[in-house]
Amino acid sequence: MAYFDNISKIKYEGAKSKDPLAFKFYNPEEQLNGQSMEEALRFGIAYWHTFTEELGDPFGTGTAQRPWDHFSDPMDRAKARVEAAFEFFDKIGAPYFAFHDVDVAPEGSSLKETLENQDVIADMLEDYMKDSKTKLLWNTTNNFSNPMFVHGAATSNSADVYAYAAAKVKKALEIGKRLGAENYVFWGGREGYESLLNTNMGLELDNLARFFHMANDYAKEIGFDAQFLIEPKPKEPTSHQYDFDVATGYAFLQKYNLDDVFKFNIEANHATLAGHSFEHELHYARINGMLGSVDANQGHPLLGWDTDEFPSDLYATTLAMYEILKNGGLGRGGLNFDAKVRRTSFKPEDLFKAHIVGMDSFALGAKVAQKLIDDKALDSILENRYKSFTEGIGKDIVDGNTDFKKLQDYALGLDKFETESGNLEVIKGILNQYLVTTIAEG
Amino acid sequence: MAYFDNISKIKYEGAKSKDPLAFKFYNPEEQLNGQSMEEALRFGIAYWHTFTEELGDPFGTGTAQRPWDHFSDPMDRAKARVEAAFEFFDKIGAPYFAFHDVDVAPEGSSLKETLENQDVIADMLEDYMKDSKTKLLWNTTNNFSNPMFVHGAATSNSADVYAYAAAKVKKALEIGKRLGAENYVFWGGREGYESLLNTNMGLELDNLARFFHMANDYAKEIGFDAQFLIEPKPKEPTSHQYDFDVATGYAFLQKYNLDDVFKFNIEANHATLAGHSFEHELHYARINGMLGSVDANQGHPLLGWDTDEFPSDLYATTLAMYEILKNGGLGRGGLNFDAKVRRTSFKPEDLFKAHIVGMDSFALGAKVAQKLIDDKALDSILENRYKSFTEGIGKDIVDGNTDFKKLQDYALGLDKFETESGNLEVIKGILNQYLVTTIAEG
Amino acid sequence: MAYFDNISKIKYEGAKSKDPLAFKFYNPEEQLNGQSMEEALRFGIAYWHTFTEELGDPFGTGTAQRPWDHFSDPMDRAKARVEAAFEFFDKIGAPYFAFHDVDVAPEGSSLKETLENQDVIADMLEDYMKDSKTKLLWNTTNNFSNPMFVHGAATSNSADVYAYAAAKVKKALEIGKRLGAENYVFWGGREGYESLLNTNMGLELDNLARFFHMANDYAKEIGFDAQFLIEPKPKEPTSHQYDFDVATGYAFLQKYNLDDVFKFNIEANHATLAGHSFEHELHYARINGMLGSVDANQGHPLLGWDTDEFPSDLYATTLAMYEILKNGGLGRGGLNFDAKVRRTSFKPEDLFKAHIVGMDSFALGAKVAQKLIDDKALDSILENRYKSFTEGIGKDIVDGNTDFKKLQDYALGLDKFETESGNLEVIKGILNQYLVTTIAEG
Amino acid sequence: MAYFDNISKIKYEGAKSKDPLAFKFYNPEEQLNGQSMEEALRFGIAYWHTFTEELGDPFGTGTAQRPWDHFSDPMDRAKARVEAAFEFFDKIGAPYFAFHDVDVAPEGSSLKETLENQDVIADMLEDYMKDSKTKLLWNTTNNFSNPMFVHGAATSNSADVYAYAAAKVKKALEIGKRLGAENYVFWGGREGYESLLNTNMGLELDNLARFFHMANDYAKEIGFDAQFLIEPKPKEPTSHQYDFDVATGYAFLQKYNLDDVFKFNIEANHATLAGHSFEHELHYARINGMLGSVDANQGHPLLGWDTDEFPSDLYATTLAMYEILKNGGLGRGGLNFDAKVRRTSFKPEDLFKAHIVGMDSFALGAKVAQKLIDDKALDSILENRYKSFTEGIGKDIVDGNTDFKKLQDYALGLDKFETESGNLEVIKGILNQYLVTTIAEG
Repeated sequence: MAYFDNISKIKYEGAKSKDPLAFKFYNPEEQLNGQSMEEALRFGIAYWHTFTEELGDPFGTGTAQRPWDHFSDPMDRAKARVEAAFEFFDKIGAPYFAFHDVDVAPEGSSLKETLENQDVIADMLEDYMKDSKTKLLWNTTNNFSNPMFVHGAATSNSADVYAYAAAKVKKALEIGKRLGAENYVFWGGREGYESLLNTNMGLELDNLARFFHMANDYAKEIGFDAQFLIEPKPKEPTSHQYDFDVATGYAFLQKYNLDDVFKFNIEANHATLAGHSFEHELHYARINGMLGSVDANQGHPLLGWDTDEFPSDLYATTLAMYEILKNGGLGRGGLNFDAKVRRTSFKPEDLFKAHIVGMDSFALGAKVAQKLIDDKALDSILENRYKSFTEGIGKDIVDGNTDFKKLQDYALGLDKFETESGNLEVIKGILNQYLVTTIAEG
Repeated sequence: MAYFDNISKIKYEGAKSKDPLAFKFYNPEEQLNGQSMEEALRFGIAYWHTFTEELGDPFGTGTAQRPWDHFSDPMDRAKARVEAAFEFFDKIGAPYFAFHDVDVAPEGSSLKETLENQDVIADMLEDYMKDSKTKLLWNTTNNFSNPMFVHGAATSNSADVYAYAAAKVKKALEIGKRLGAENYVFWGGREGYESLLNTNMGLELDNLARFFHMANDYAKEIGFDAQFLIEPKPKEPTSHQYDFDVATGYAFLQKYNLDDVFKFNIEANHATLAGHSFEHELHYARINGMLGSVDANQGHPLLGWDTDEFPSDLYATTLAMYEILKNGGLGRGGLNFDAKVRRTSFKPEDLFKAHIVGMDSFALGAKVAQKLIDDKALDSILENRYKSFTEGIGKDIVDGNTDFKKLQDYALGLDKFETESGNLEVIKGILNQYLVTTIAEG
Repeated sequence: MAYFDNISKIKYEGAKSKDPLAFKFYNPEEQLNGQSMEEALRFGIAYWHTFTEELGDPFGTGTAQRPWDHFSDPMDRAKARVEAAFEFFDKIGAPYFAFHDVDVAPEGSSLKETLENQDVIADMLEDYMKDSKTKLLWNTTNNFSNPMFVHGAATSNSADVYAYAAAKVKKALEIGKRLGAENYVFWGGREGYESLLNTNMGLELDNLARFFHMANDYAKEIGFDAQFLIEPKPKEPTSHQYDFDVATGYAFLQKYNLDDVFKFNIEANHATLAGHSFEHELHYARINGMLGSVDANQGHPLLGWDTDEFPSDLYATTLAMYEILKNGGLGRGGLNFDAKVRRTSFKPEDLFKAHIVGMDSFALGAKVAQKLIDDKALDSILENRYKSFTEGIGKDIVDGNTDFKKLQDYALGLDKFETESGNLEVIKGILNQYLVTTIAEG
Repeated sequence: MAYFDNISKIKYEGAKSKDPLAFKFYNPEEQLNGQSMEEALRFGIAYWHTFTEELGDPFGTGTAQRPWDHFSDPMDRAKARVEAAFEFFDKIGAPYFAFHDVDVAPEGSSLKETLENQDVIADMLEDYMKDSKTKLLWNTTNNFSNPMFVHGAATSNSADVYAYAAAKVKKALEIGKRLGAENYVFWGGREGYESLLNTNMGLELDNLARFFHMANDYAKEIGFDAQFLIEPKPKEPTSHQYDFDVATGYAFLQKYNLDDVFKFNIEANHATLAGHSFEHELHYARINGMLGSVDANQGHPLLGWDTDEFPSDLYATTLAMYEILKNGGLGRGGLNFDAKVRRTSFKPEDLFKAHIVGMDSFALGAKVAQKLIDDKALDSILENRYKSFTEGIGKDIVDGNTDFKKLQDYALGLDKFETESGNLEVIKGILNQYLVTTIAEG
């Protein structure tokens, strides 16, 4: 059975195409720095947004019209979604997907039943994956939606809830291993606080670290070799999420000796909510060897909540791809579309159209970024700007061959200080030139 | 004498040029919808940022290196700036400029001396304008920097300060008339409040309206026919500026019967500080017949103060030009670069380079916007979306031929409601296509 | 039957009480400026937050535990809520309540059934109100939650949806009249835009004005004399809500000749989302004669969405009550708790506890504000600051007896300008003194 | 000679005093938990804001009227400021002060002269300190205002500038030792980036760490045992400051093995600019053993820049003092008023009045906080909320005696999950009760 009858396999038609159901910039086989675009970009489909999301918001109920809406039994609907998902993966040409436990299988009336439901669906996913090229980028648990997690999961004030959360992660690690997940993600849904007035932050953070160590121990025990990832977010749903941004997560990992175990899954919209640019978070992770994977979406610059829009801002995708290409790619990570169609884009075909815009925007960004790199357009600027640290006193500083007394002596001997313009306006102009001419040049 | 010896007249070299001192997209003679680009864009140079600004910030003193720095006498320096300004206007090819009174002439030790200084410089400007194609887009007064204006000018708690402010505006209107200014701008520097706890907002707003009426009366009296403009800003330097945004200004103008006298000078960075997009403010002014002129700059999306950057974001310039072209142009207004080089771009040539990036960014935006209009790329979407208001019950609504009883009867007779997808993701994809292919297509 | 068996009528116990189910500062009979506190504060209970709200958020399902949860039939549950509501009103001692149509009665499978359901519940409300002192502060329609309103209601792109919205408002006006509502509120749920790229803002605003005129005509026709109120909000759920803030609403009302028909219902959290303080919005409405009613809640200063917290910030309640008392009270308006218990405060008794904190916080604010007024603590500061406008040239300015020539002559004759300190730090210290000593002084 | 002739020594007069030049809540000798208030609060005066600041802003020149304005020679003015400062310290009763190098001594025309000027003033300070009870809380260098530091100091792209910065810090460490400074602060003025496009963040951070190691080595060498402090700030003047917040600083310190050398100097306004509450930053530092000292000020919740207001918000001071008292005090740190009078509060006496409000606000906050602690008002709530981690499975988790398998077994054996209300509204009500009744109770 087909859920998306009226949709054919999406094809590349080039920059001038007016077909909303065709790629304009993403050509999977096109070469990008010695790889195919498909290999370089490693796009993933987020199960929750694409197959489970109902498109409600705090002021309105769901608008999504989905071809599996007519299944009223939760397990039947879950199975229909799996079928639809693999049809979608095939038609859009997705090399990866990602899911939370409750996205794919409904919660039962007991923990036992919940875990059993997951096994049933995991069997089905395993089956479908045999005949599909689409692999599992990562899985995770949703330990935040159920009312039980109202005060958090691994940072709950209730030991029972903590144990329940652990039980779910244990199962998810097992399923991740079974399905060959390349990564396992921890987004701290309600791991944070609403108010310090009723929170023991020290205990909660200690408990969170204990949870991560136990998760790692168990993954080792069962031979699940996925890369563990923390996904930072500053706020929402809690007022303060413990994994505020990459730097906060890095401080935590170092303190609790977890920095060898984890890398980061960086989401664009979470970056901007934290007061950072997307590229800042990627860059900071990169220079600390902690860039793991990416949740590819975008926020609205004037709104203060997670809008999870499909990425379309070419400045953002270009600068993100610049960081990723400079990182030598994402390794086992990928570009997962943690993005949802607008509540106003509620038709089934909107799911395809929106992914196409997202994939095109990253493909175009990748082409522009690769050209910037090939031409050393920014690298040459940096080399020139910092050349004073490659010789003389600058080299001594970098090599650790100086001290404050020598530096003061040196400074006292200087006549005048020449500083150069930072040239920022010109550099922004160069970025614009690359943006609007790259496609024309092919 | 030449102040910018090493700079030649800036020429158009096309999209691939690597010369930071050449236009890549702005070709003054190129046609855009039946006009030359020069006529369509009406670029203006902001005297304060380009010739008076020292590039200090709250954490550091000025870094600007200017060829007139060696003049220590204020009037000598002021005169040197005029010479340099017209050299700059000529080399960059600016059809317009704009200034505050204190940008061009130094304040004296008394009001009398201050006004005399202005006359001296006005003579000089008049003289230089005779031999220049550069005209005065607008002038204004700086009634906010002098410590006297610490509590505001036309909204000061001191009647003496109010009178002093009026005296300066009177002189500025006379100079505006003499120099043929096309507009006169009121930006309410410190017209606002720091705290409601010590503010009589009702009296201050009434006084502000009185001030505007007197200004209009005097302009009429002397036959100065410039378009009066209010420039909204939400905050900074005061906590709450009275001209918060266009809507707030429009409410004020209507209340005080000033809406026939004023239009708005809309600044991009002020729009975003108010929580609006640039295009929102332009659009809102346009549909209310109040779009007068534009301060062309951009803010930093993650910073909460006025950064006054040179515009380089092509989404912003495209959508701004879309509004302006839809408005049939700016009439007597223009695109004034109320933008300053970064504190790190302190060399004289950075002034040219930054303006080039700004002019190129608006020229490119204009080309993309014109193509969107020519192709009815967005218009056709709108026509289709709102077609229900062109017939049947929708037409009755628009024509005022219905009431709640008829509407309820009609609604009770409807079987089902079909709503269409808003297609926003696709539309953003279309915008990207136009952005990256317009140049290639010429 | 009692829904809140374990809760007794809430009593005033004074500032030292440790009982979370007793008032500490709100003493209904206590006199405040010649009225009882109950008359002065006119507290209202928001039906939607207190009786319908399930306490879900975008990352989790509802946590609310309610004594009517066991009713599975929507109409049965609706009726149980009415019974519980009047028990709640009585126990908390609320003089007013407020509701949207869909809060009290479930939507049916057709418009006809929906309107019939409303009539059934309206009958029941009418009945209960006969035996209750609690009156209807205002009612309104929820024209935003149903998927039909995905693109707005009175600003929808669909004329059918517009008609449907009108049909619902017509019924609500009739019910408002029947139940003796003192006001009728329009909060523009989805009246706004998600993106200008697919929006005809001019048509939508014209249609909105037409809708308001028709609503007013119909209210007159049926003799419903409630005060009409617009409730501004800047964003959420749409990216830009048309009623951004009071000033924007005031511009709209003036343009469309509706400023005699409407006043404003001002919500604290909406004010801060718009970049204003709560007291700013109240003050601006007050000096323009447009202060109608108040939605009493508070936002979280570090979060960018509507948190609708119960008011507890005593600075905010004091300064709000200062404006309200200066306005001579709210007339037919009231202090409606448009506030919800936290998702973590999910027990039935939390509904009482939270309202108690809100009522206490406003009562305390009212006492402090009244004392500030009685002592002329701020008034005397203002009188002194602005005294220059009560004599001489200042009086001429205020009386309209001057012009720019006279003002310039006057200014040229001044020797020096004396400005006074604004004393803001001291004034904030005075506010603190009043805050911490008012209770002790009784 | 006296600079503040008309000001007497500031005395405590109690909560009802109307004298703006008297303390209402700060009574230096009053006991607070076994210490005098003076010992517990360790107030410091910020030299830069109180004696050097001219009260300019980006839109206006300085308004400050100071009794040393008539000294035109920079060294004469510097010396007058020292005299005035110690008069101020004495009259306000300040136990500490703090300064940057350039606050106290003017920069010379060469580095040599600059350092000599510092020695001259250091001699004078040393002299004055002999006869004063006021001690040096900390000193630091201003390596950001001079145009030389336009691209940063220890993170400059110029090795010469780096050396120059080192030379200045070396001198400052020597002066700190000489004057007995209890701490040495590093606020990274321009240590950050304006844009990633022209920044080598990796090199800059490595260089910054090298700088800190060399500073520590030199302090050890000369026997200067002050506590080293980093002062986080997220942005301003740069778009991204490297010491974004405490967590970011903590990640940096751990990475570069500096976490034993440094603690944090936490500023309220910097916390809120970073999207955190003041108490969050204090709490996070406290539970990581990194709370060193405090810059006591406040920001404006609706403004996006550093307003450095004198603290007056009693919620903020109470919750800050709660953290500080829970920390067992600040050790060698103190409450330094990194706060400036408003530009509108330009009179000399405003300096006293504003400090009085700040000291009173912290004293009052301290009294309320101490009462909350004495009564275990919040502690008992926490103990109850987290009691599940003191026994059974919870104790096993905390003790590290469990694993995912045991936790899953345990969870599978649970019948139901009881969660308790977080009671946040009630807790906020309790906080209000303490706030308004503490003074009355003495």
